Amino acid sequence: MNGIAIVGYGYWGPKLVRNFLQSGAFARVVICEENSERLARGLRENPGALPADSFARVLADSSIDAVALATPVATHHALALAALAAGKHVLVEKPLATRSSEAGELVALAAARGRVLMVDHTYVYHPAVQRIRQLVADGTLGRLAYIDSTRINLGLFQHDVNVLWDLAVHDLAIINSLTSERPAIVQAIGASHTASPLANIGVLVLRYASGLFVHLNCSWVSPVKIRHMLIGGDKKMVVYDDLDANEPVKIYDSGFTARTDEERNRLLFEYRAGDVYSPKIPPREALANLVADFVAAIRQERPAFSDGRFGADTVKILEAAEQSVTSGGKEISLSWK
Amino acid sequence: MNGIAIVGYGYWGPKLVRNFLQSGAFARVVICEENSERLARGLRENPGALPADSFARVLADSSIDAVALATPVATHHALALAALAAGKHVLVEKPLATRSSEAGELVALAAARGRVLMVDHTYVYHPAVQRIRQLVADGTLGRLAYIDSTRINLGLFQHDVNVLWDLAVHDLAIINSLTSERPAIVQAIGASHTASPLANIGVLVLRYASGLFVHLNCSWVSPVKIRHMLIGGDKKMVVYDDLDANEPVKIYDSGFTARTDEERNRLLFEYRAGDVYSPKIPPREALANLVADFVAAIRQERPAFSDGRFGADTVKILEAAEQSVTSGGKEISLSWK
Amino acid sequence: MNGIAIVGYGYWGPKLVRNFLQSGAFARVVICEENSERLARGLRENPGALPADSFARVLADSSIDAVALATPVATHHALALAALAAGKHVLVEKPLATRSSEAGELVALAAARGRVLMVDHTYVYHPAVQRIRQLVADGTLGRLAYIDSTRINLGLFQHDVNVLWDLAVHDLAIINSLTSERPAIVQAIGASHTASPLANIGVLVLRYASGLFVHLNCSWVSPVKIRHMLIGGDKKMVVYDDLDANEPVKIYDSGFTARTDEERNRLLFEYRAGDVYSPKIPPREALANLVADFVAAIRQERPAFSDGRFGADTVKILEAAEQSVTSGGKEISLSWK
Amino acid sequence: MNGIAIVGYGYWGPKLVRNFLQSGAFARVVICEENSERLARGLRENPGALPADSFARVLADSSIDAVALATPVATHHALALAALAAGKHVLVEKPLATRSSEAGELVALAAARGRVLMVDHTYVYHPAVQRIRQLVADGTLGRLAYIDSTRINLGLFQHDVNVLWDLAVHDLAIINSLTSERPAIVQAIGASHTASPLANIGVLVLRYASGLFVHLNCSWVSPVKIRHMLIGGDKKMVVYDDLDANEPVKIYDSGFTARTDEERNRLLFEYRAGDVYSPKIPPREALANLVADFVAAIRQERPAFSDGRFGADTVKILEAAEQSVTSGGKEISLSWK
Repeated sequence: MNGIAIVGYGYWGPKLVRNFLQSGAFARVVICEENSERLARGLRENPGALPADSFARVLADSSIDAVALATPVATHHALALAALAAGKHVLVEKPLATRSSEAGELVALAAARGRVLMVDHTYVYHPAVQRIRQLVADGTLGRLAYIDSTRINLGLFQHDVNVLWDLAVHDLAIINSLTSERPAIVQAIGASHTASPLANIGVLVLRYASGLFVHLNCSWVSPVKIRHMLIGGDKKMVVYDDLDANEPVKIYDSGFTARTDEERNRLLFEYRAGDVYSPKIPPREALANLVADFVAAIRQERPAFSDGRFGADTVKILEAAEQSVTSGGKEISLSWK
Repeated sequence: MNGIAIVGYGYWGPKLVRNFLQSGAFARVVICEENSERLARGLRENPGALPADSFARVLADSSIDAVALATPVATHHALALAALAAGKHVLVEKPLATRSSEAGELVALAAARGRVLMVDHTYVYHPAVQRIRQLVADGTLGRLAYIDSTRINLGLFQHDVNVLWDLAVHDLAIINSLTSERPAIVQAIGASHTASPLANIGVLVLRYASGLFVHLNCSWVSPVKIRHMLIGGDKKMVVYDDLDANEPVKIYDSGFTARTDEERNRLLFEYRAGDVYSPKIPPREALANLVADFVAAIRQERPAFSDGRFGADTVKILEAAEQSVTSGGKEISLSWK
Repeated sequence: MNGIAIVGYGYWGPKLVRNFLQSGAFARVVICEENSERLARGLRENPGALPADSFARVLADSSIDAVALATPVATHHALALAALAAGKHVLVEKPLATRSSEAGELVALAAARGRVLMVDHTYVYHPAVQRIRQLVADGTLGRLAYIDSTRINLGLFQHDVNVLWDLAVHDLAIINSLTSERPAIVQAIGASHTASPLANIGVLVLRYASGLFVHLNCSWVSPVKIRHMLIGGDKKMVVYDDLDANEPVKIYDSGFTARTDEERNRLLFEYRAGDVYSPKIPPREALANLVADFVAAIRQERPAFSDGRFGADTVKILEAAEQSVTSGGKEISLSWK
Repeated sequence: MNGIAIVGYGYWGPKLVRNFLQSGAFARVVICEENSERLARGLRENPGALPADSFARVLADSSIDAVALATPVATHHALALAALAAGKHVLVEKPLATRSSEAGELVALAAARGRVLMVDHTYVYHPAVQRIRQLVADGTLGRLAYIDSTRINLGLFQHDVNVLWDLAVHDLAIINSLTSERPAIVQAIGASHTASPLANIGVLVLRYASGLFVHLNCSWVSPVKIRHMLIGGDKKMVVYDDLDANEPVKIYDSGFTARTDEERNRLLFEYRAGDVYSPKIPPREALANLVADFVAAIRQERPAFSDGRFGADTVKILEAAEQSVTSGGKEISLSWK
């Protein structure tokens, strides 16, 4: 393909530029950045990349087939809209937008224009997550009963979004990639310990028609870093520890079964704790997988895995979560067509 | 003192008998158990213990000063009421009762009769918890901002109570022992994955007038056992890992401070990650500490630390949690005199 | 069977008494202990056990079929000799004797009298070790290339033996149970940090005709406790961590293969790191397994797994190790018939 | 200063180039590499670096003050000799040379020519090691009694040196940086499991006149990676776990003391296990510290910490270790002026 422009060279932009250069899929890789100092740094760090000092020029350049937006969330909607209107394929840093309605507009426009719209939910392309998806898909885990994730650390607070938009967005993308079902009910509770009203601790609960129960625990104020997810099926259970370099995915041959206790005349549930198996996870970088899917989606004229619809689903859940936080944890019902 | 009777020789009774024998505080240690086989086992396992085959005889025996109830929760109210009415000091296995109103009756009767009423919240007497209580009391942690506890494992389900009554009861006792403040608002959400309507996964959130935010995550269906509590103060933070035999308590010289990011014109919060200190925790058994406090309370005619009022507070929070679970996670306001 | 006498009620004796009582294999379980206070404690702790206040009476009592010696190591030879001479089956706490020649005498006498002589190398009957033995026997690991064990902690020094006799004895028993091969060369180096000349740190290296290389690291002066053994085969490798309650045995599908590096014209060995599998280890107590084997050996008139010969092999290696320590780490060659 | 040339752009060269560029201490940073493809990559990856296609030109260029050798070990002696003779300051990748005599020549020449000779023992400049050195220097640990290091993993075998030259070199540099004492006796035992005679498992023991005992366990054939060092003083003990990202250095208030056991009439040593303290280790890169010391040594005309003498000491110990391996673990005595 001809050219791709990465828009914004702050925290995430450099990773995209590097991966698009490494993929070799585009003849030209353009860095679009209005800040001249950052642009110069981008060119220095990436021999072979080309400069663009305005988004308008990128849109007007017919040799640029696709744009990747690594700009602040608040700009996603406007920039993606303009890029799709200009006939570009679009990759947007997560989350797709700040409101569900805006996400929907982008999805509709991409469909109308026949362009690829993809959201950069990098975790979805992580080899560990892909392995777990396979375990769900091939029935190894059985019916999903619950998912319980803890994603806490001590870090920079975001000034414009609460902790759920910053951290739970990863869990939601992972969970949405494991099952095609979407939650029927969303509840969230948050707490702030600063002058800002935005929650720095957030608890999110999702309930599904199938019975699946999801609990997410997010925090910016923990002295220890934890990235720990339990995925409980009625056959086997998985522990996904993103910080365990050696065994990030462990499959437990564990479960529970009902038993009647004659002596005490009651129904008891006995546990079964069996072998543990930890598959080797290939070390391939998640973002390289994502870039490959973006390129393939364009070439094969098919949706990417984390396409606009996928990204819009995540935004819809986060929007409901924020509404629930504001209302004191009330249940928010969601309908999905 | 003269005699104590331990009522019930099932799971917990043996531990009480052994500890009361070891304390040497009572001239006679009586096992009261209607099941003759269990009674025989109790006598065989505890040379020096004496038998009683009915609770009525214990009540009528004026040489028995105190009773310790290790019977099913549903029986606590009636048995404790009778024992207090008979002039006995009473130690009750946690929780004190199944309803707040019943707990209140017991507290009132104990006060009226001038008898010690104590609840066996063993964790409160655990050396690690006592050390953390000291860190809060002496101001080391600063003002408490949040407590976040995960208490999950794969185990026998209870037939008559949900997972919060079984597991969160421990967290609540620990938390109630760290601060004299009690929660203003309780919210809880549960999920059941069996024929039983009782939740086997439970999420409990407490909000306090001081700003303290508490989150408890309880489960009977996790393939891994976790007993992990974060206690965040505005000066330092503690991680209490009950399964870490070597360093159960770690004190982090960590926190966060506000900073204005000039470039992006926003308020940022920077983290501070400093030294970690793990005090040696003496290996003394928690239950021995508890028995010592019970004995001292009787002798000194003063309340035990986990007295009836303490136990009633825990029941009140659990009762509100159950009410919240049933109502779909609604906020339940609590008032404390 | 009729009766068994456990001789000595110090540290290990109580465990033997309890296990022989639980096995139910002997009609009478006798505690033989000259110290009257200890004897009284033994009878109190073990309702059903019978007393004997002298070893002579035990020997003279024809209703006692077997004796289990839990006395100081220095007494093993004399007591076991007397017991075998009196026609008893004998279980001896490890190590069998302090000298190889004495161990040999016991083996010979047991054979001559047709009695079971067994050494209490408890680890050999540990379910984790039995599982690893199975992995070696069924060829899963391939040919054994090396075993590397670290057994260090902070603990009471022994007054009469160096750290190898105290700690390496466990490793040697485990290793001798995994392979029938015995080491051709023994080398050991020790260090003492006290007034005592006996080493509190010991390094032991064994070389086998097959190429197997064994390295043991033992210490009484480590601030942390480690019980970590690597068993490397040319097909798979095992990590046995005795302190990991959840996954004591992990099987690594790892190895190395030769490759020629064309660019640098050299032979390189590439590693292969694959899946990890942790079999569920049944929680059965090792000593119960050992007692069962002792009983079965008597009944079936066959050797126990850790029989006199097995115990004598261990003594022979330890004796050579001590000789090497004394000589400054010289190679000691061993011949095995 | 004017210029520095980094010679060799293979595995280690790129790290040196990046760090010298970042230090800003030299006006010109030159990459000297005969392989044109590698040279091109070096220039592409390091905008600002300059090329040199032969070592001869570097030597002849009077504007180049210093050279850093990142070439195969076998070339160190000749290249460093030439560079010193040409009046350059020299930084050599570890180990300084393959023979003690060659290392001594380099040290002598550097002294004669008044040039800085430094060896790149990066670990010595690691913030964790520097913190431990401080704990030794200020007396916190007391007198050093033992050091016990395990450095094992599964990795590429070296074709020209045994595992001690590859792995123990790091331990020796760390240990030599903690104490100015050098070992009186060296013993080493190795094993090879391949066609190559070079050991892939190596055990190294050092004995010091002061009583310090050092044990190193190195392996290329372990399925798990361990970087674990115990440093035992008679006051406190340190565990240095290079793979623990959060708490690499832990200080144990642990030790042992003598006690007479009256009952058994023997000398016992009781352990004391106290608090554990983990100081925050600053994240600064070790190689940046090393480069800063090299620059300061040149400017201040003083030796670097890991100067030629320091590097020669390490070579001398490794040489003795190899001699001991070859002789079947014999004690090799070393004398130090």
